[in-house]
Amino acid sequence: MKKLDYIIKQISKTNKKNLENYVITRIWHLINDLNVKIVTQQYVRRVDGYALTDLYLPQFDLHIEIDEKHHTKQIKLDFDRETDIIEATNHVLKHIKFDKDIDKINKQVDEIVDYIAKLKEQKNFEPWDLDKEFNPDYYRKKGYLNVKEKPTFRRIVDACNCLGQNYKGCQRAWVKSKVYDNYYLWFPKFYENADWDNRLDDDGVRIIEKPKKKSLAIEKHYEWSVKNPVSRIVFPRSIDNLGFVLYRFKGIYTVDKEESSIEKGIVFKRIATEFQIK
Amino acid sequence: MKKLDYIIKQISKTNKKNLENYVITRIWHLINDLNVKIVTQQYVRRVDGYALTDLYLPQFDLHIEIDEKHHTKQIKLDFDRETDIIEATNHVLKHIKFDKDIDKINKQVDEIVDYIAKLKEQKNFEPWDLDKEFNPDYYRKKGYLNVKEKPTFRRIVDACNCLGQNYKGCQRAWVKSKVYDNYYLWFPKFYENADWDNRLDDDGVRIIEKPKKKSLAIEKHYEWSVKNPVSRIVFPRSIDNLGFVLYRFKGIYTVDKEESSIEKGIVFKRIATEFQIK
Repeated sequence: MKKLDYIIKQISKTNKKNLENYVITRIWHLINDLNVKIVTQQYVRRVDGYALTDLYLPQFDLHIEIDEKHHTKQIKLDFDRETDIIEATNHVLKHIKFDKDIDKINKQVDEIVDYIAKLKEQKNFEPWDLDKEFNPDYYRKKGYLNVKEKPTFRRIVDACNCLGQNYKGCQRAWVKSKVYDNYYLWFPKFYENADWDNRLDDDGVRIIEKPKKKSLAIEKHYEWSVKNPVSRIVFPRSIDNLGFVLYRFKGIYTVDKEESSIEKGIVFKRIATEFQIK
Repeated sequence: MKKLDYIIKQISKTNKKNLENYVITRIWHLINDLNVKIVTQQYVRRVDGYALTDLYLPQFDLHIEIDEKHHTKQIKLDFDRETDIIEATNHVLKHIKFDKDIDKINKQVDEIVDYIAKLKEQKNFEPWDLDKEFNPDYYRKKGYLNVKEKPTFRRIVDACNCLGQNYKGCQRAWVKSKVYDNYYLWFPKFYENADWDNRLDDDGVRIIEKPKKKSLAIEKHYEWSVKNPVSRIVFPRSIDNLGFVLYRFKGIYTVDKEESSIEKGIVFKRIATEFQIK
């Protein structure tokens, strides 16, 4: 996908909401910088629950909400557990208040555009680069994966090769590392299936693999997991707002023997948010 | 209607066409001047037929076409004779060529925005003013109606009062002037009805009232019209792209006795494109 295609797809999500389309296109066109990335209709997890923000600028952890005419927006949050939901703790949320006067709407947009221009001047600003954002080589050169930077891949094979597996293809969700002793790469799906109901804690510090019924296979899996306290490099699977699959690095996890039981499930706790790439 | 409402309604006509929405919002936001009026999807009459232009800037007689990916646009022109169609002779038509590279699209828009900025500097530039554009008092103060400036009213009563009728309301399409001797105000509909099939020539110089059948009433009307060469101040009725009724001044017409016949119809020729308001 090229930037034009990406931006047009993002903007097209505002098609039926005319004021939203007006404000979001105005923000994008007046930022007038292809180094800035935008996401429309991003699901976020906040301290007080879930929300959908109208515009998200991931480089600045900045969200913009366009307020409706008469009252606070009532959005039906129809996401499932595959939906890409980002943690929005410490993110900034700005509002564009509805006004019938176009001049007052425009002035609010101008203020936000000025604010973004200032954020861009900060030295940690990294220009948006579509070619490198899901590119394993980019992270290999960088030398680490850090949860704060939200390293994300489109395919399991890309995450694997970023960590030295050197595969042509890979569809497996559980891969023993060739490079790092006692490390496994894990690409869990956090939604229910026939046997398991897996969950990632809201703050990302804990994963629970909960069996839905008892069986020999489940018992075997439980025993192996608890007896082998391997380090798990975890990339949960999700679907972004354009329908693309994402595997986003969430940290290094290991089993918590005390917390785990066959009834409660296998509990994994996060032991690191950064991983050094050899 | 306020400007925000108007602009959002115009832009919403591009909702399903994502590149068009991108380009048109970019032009609007980068012009960044509430004194400039835009119309999307304007029907125009050209020397070689009819067309629908993606963006029209009436203050500059400027049209912008956003070219599709692979071939020339094939638009089904589903207008009827009520559709507001403007003469586009001597208008300028600019193209935005499709490109996969967002930077190349943006550069083409920048050039058009620069071009518009230059046009704005011309001394005959009149800022867009929603309050006065359909306001009879504005034209009374100006002291004339000129076809080139496309004077337009939303209601028959407004056109009547602009010319001194001093009505509270008026729904009639044929009004004898109280102020101007031997002048009538005429608000014709140029589409077929049971008795008549009226037409305005493409270049606006001729009107033909053509009877569809013979009857005593039609014969009487024919005789009156040919025997009374009154001056007709003509405001044909049309419907603009947002669905609002328009009465736009087309000039002063009088009957052309030689050209008229009960078979061919009553022919009126334009004798003036400007009318002085007392």
